[in-house]
Amino acid sequence: MVSGEFELIRRYFSDLGYDQSGSVRLAVGDDCAVIAPPANRDLVLSIDTMVEGVHFLAGTSGDKVASRLFGAALSDLAAMAATPAFFTLALTLPSTDSIWLQAFSVRLAELARQYGVQLIGGDTTRGPLTLSIQVHGWTHPGKALLRSGARPGDRIFVTGTLGDSKGGLETQLKNIHGAQVPYLQHRFYTPEPRIDTALLIAEYATAAIDVSDGLLADLNHILEASNVGAMINPDELPISAELHQWVGAAQSREWALTGGEDFELCFTVPAILEPKLSWALRDHRVGVTCIGQISAKPGILFSEGGRVWPVEPQGYNHFINKHKV
Amino acid sequence: MVSGEFELIRRYFSDLGYDQSGSVRLAVGDDCAVIAPPANRDLVLSIDTMVEGVHFLAGTSGDKVASRLFGAALSDLAAMAATPAFFTLALTLPSTDSIWLQAFSVRLAELARQYGVQLIGGDTTRGPLTLSIQVHGWTHPGKALLRSGARPGDRIFVTGTLGDSKGGLETQLKNIHGAQVPYLQHRFYTPEPRIDTALLIAEYATAAIDVSDGLLADLNHILEASNVGAMINPDELPISAELHQWVGAAQSREWALTGGEDFELCFTVPAILEPKLSWALRDHRVGVTCIGQISAKPGILFSEGGRVWPVEPQGYNHFINKHKV
Repeated sequence: MVSGEFELIRRYFSDLGYDQSGSVRLAVGDDCAVIAPPANRDLVLSIDTMVEGVHFLAGTSGDKVASRLFGAALSDLAAMAATPAFFTLALTLPSTDSIWLQAFSVRLAELARQYGVQLIGGDTTRGPLTLSIQVHGWTHPGKALLRSGARPGDRIFVTGTLGDSKGGLETQLKNIHGAQVPYLQHRFYTPEPRIDTALLIAEYATAAIDVSDGLLADLNHILEASNVGAMINPDELPISAELHQWVGAAQSREWALTGGEDFELCFTVPAILEPKLSWALRDHRVGVTCIGQISAKPGILFSEGGRVWPVEPQGYNHFINKHKV
Repeated sequence: MVSGEFELIRRYFSDLGYDQSGSVRLAVGDDCAVIAPPANRDLVLSIDTMVEGVHFLAGTSGDKVASRLFGAALSDLAAMAATPAFFTLALTLPSTDSIWLQAFSVRLAELARQYGVQLIGGDTTRGPLTLSIQVHGWTHPGKALLRSGARPGDRIFVTGTLGDSKGGLETQLKNIHGAQVPYLQHRFYTPEPRIDTALLIAEYATAAIDVSDGLLADLNHILEASNVGAMINPDELPISAELHQWVGAAQSREWALTGGEDFELCFTVPAILEPKLSWALRDHRVGVTCIGQISAKPGILFSEGGRVWPVEPQGYNHFINKHKV
């Protein structure tokens, strides 16, 4: 056990990650961190909180909390097509558990190096296990990818597969065992921020968001910000073989639409640029699927087998139906 | 009662404060906020967390939590001599208590306007009441005031009076009533970040810190970072009349040295610049007191009535002797 706050911070969180942009003038150790912004860049930033028993099961190991926290946070930078640079961490801990802290900090350090971001400051307090992370990145001036740029006729795309994270949560709540479980739980605990995909599509995309509340709810944020609507073909939703095998077509589709926390990107691209987008993604390791298109009339319509019907953008509201774990 | 997270955020935290530096390109409402850094400025930032029952008494009203959280956070910018610009807020709430939230947001908005800072982003989650705030400001390049610049012979100064915040806490824990109580509790709940003082002294100061852990502990951070020591005259410690009247000389002195959370500045200035410092502060409303000087030999010595003796920099460690409330 470490004996005090200062020693704890020094021991686990010094020299964690590196800033690929080279902008950090002063990191941990003074009253504030100091950044020298690169010339001709906008700063893009987002803060996220995770609470034990709300966002992850009580007793979750430090490494899993680290990857879930970090992946979810960096996903917001991906949604803006920003290049990650540095982050801060506010850690509230019930006690100084050195095993948990070591697992947490080792995993966080691995991810920080992988994504080229540096831990530059933080706060450590006593209390119920709660973690707030603020991530920061850079874009060219005025080039951050917003929610508000979608236009009628734009194609709607999503990365990867949807619904897996919800599946991973359910396998834990129901104590399911089976061949699909490791994949689904990995998807729940290790969301992969789509930074590289975002930087590839940024030139063509008109709007983007990351899927945190559920595809319908997040797509609806784009639609409201852009003052447009959408026609979705639910047959086109990308579903993993593992999720489909475990719960079948109907449940997979529901979770893909409303499950949330997949941290995939949903983005729009003008139809005329679709060939260029395909070319840009030709060797890319992450699948990108067209699931519909933007329409002028507000609201979301489903189109399937010749039928068209409206749907409500049911989301994932932390104060209403947040998973009780 | 508001019905959901999005509505809650919109209702209480939209359009809160303004950024006096004009750097905010996009605030609340997208995946990230976007900042256009002013030319030729460093970004200075700090994150702080407060937990109910640890940093403030359970049941504390929203306005008091707001002023304590905001004052403590901006104090870190003062310690770097940075001009405040914008902030983010991660709010974890056990339930959606509209009375508490309204009191909190109204007070936060008042302070944000007063100090010229804008709320640009946040996160709202369910859980035990925990608040993390990250504050951001600007300095000229390389001009942030660090802990590491103190040199032997420098004079050591503190702003305002010390020990009042500890006194204010004790009046609550012991349920004290009396003429001094309103002043002391105000000092506890409404720490005043010494931004304007910091900007006045920055030209002359070699090092600075804000008094959060206790004067001795915080001064010791300067000494360790600067690899120097200090000789303090405890007779010179600035103590308020109210604190002295309530607990007398000996207890006042102890709380001034170790009480913590006064959020006054402790800073060092070369002796040769002391006249210029005095001139710069001639019309300043905040008192500034010389309490000793920097020496070459590490450690802290007290000097009083012809006697000199060493003292331990006893601090305020959140995991050891954090006030249990």
